[in-house]
Amino acid sequence: MTDFKLDERLEADTHLVCELENCSLRLLDDTRWPWLVLVPRIAGAEEWHVLTKGQRIMIDDEVARVASALKEMTGCQKINIASIGNMVRQLHIHVVARNEGDANWPGPVWGFGTREPYDVDSATTFIESFKSAFS
Amino acid sequence: MTDFKLDERLEADTHLVCELENCSLRLLDDTRWPWLVLVPRIAGAEEWHVLTKGQRIMIDDEVARVASALKEMTGCQKINIASIGNMVRQLHIHVVARNEGDANWPGPVWGFGTREPYDVDSATTFIESFKSAFS
Repeated sequence: MTDFKLDERLEADTHLVCELENCSLRLLDDTRWPWLVLVPRIAGAEEWHVLTKGQRIMIDDEVARVASALKEMTGCQKINIASIGNMVRQLHIHVVARNEGDANWPGPVWGFGTREPYDVDSATTFIESFKSAFS
Repeated sequence: MTDFKLDERLEADTHLVCELENCSLRLLDDTRWPWLVLVPRIAGAEEWHVLTKGQRIMIDDEVARVASALKEMTGCQKINIASIGNMVRQLHIHVVARNEGDANWPGPVWGFGTREPYDVDSATTFIESFKSAFS
């Protein structure tokens, strides 16, 4: 794992929440939806299905824990989980809280409109609130 | 699992490929992308993160095997995997083969345009070709 380096676009578009055992957990810088991204620290990984079974189990545990906490924190109606990577190939898993009437509901969050960034205070507030639910 | 019944919309929008140990594997009836859907036969399941760890491991094994075979069959550039469920709440996992220049690339397949159904022969051909890669 020594060669892992976070993709520059992922770094630019997100705020670090915390480092989990296997993934860098990041807040997507878009206030339209509560949107977290897990980036496994595995150099060169692009596709979920080429990970080893052990890697998938460990990373999926983190995905499920993050999804549970995001659901608890937001009280959202639906969690969306996805590994897409058409634009940024470095493997990353989206976990998004969705509600009826949110931007583009019931359509997907990806590729819709323009990001609406957090200001520093509101990103910090989100992250602290998420960490409370996560712990 | 005795109470599981496939959602009517999923049934109407897909062709059965085969029954796996844990999931019904189905071809989405849209020729724009090679697009498979796994529906875990778990009554009432809606969210990935509320499954037990054992359920997630078994189902994810099937997802990864399906993704590998779809990649092998199509030679696609990217696999997209997602559990969304904003419209159909019954838990289902999308596995889609994507290529530069396909419909809505690099945007998502969900919510884009209108389905272009298979004719019976071409659906059968796809399914047989997939099964060869899967076995």
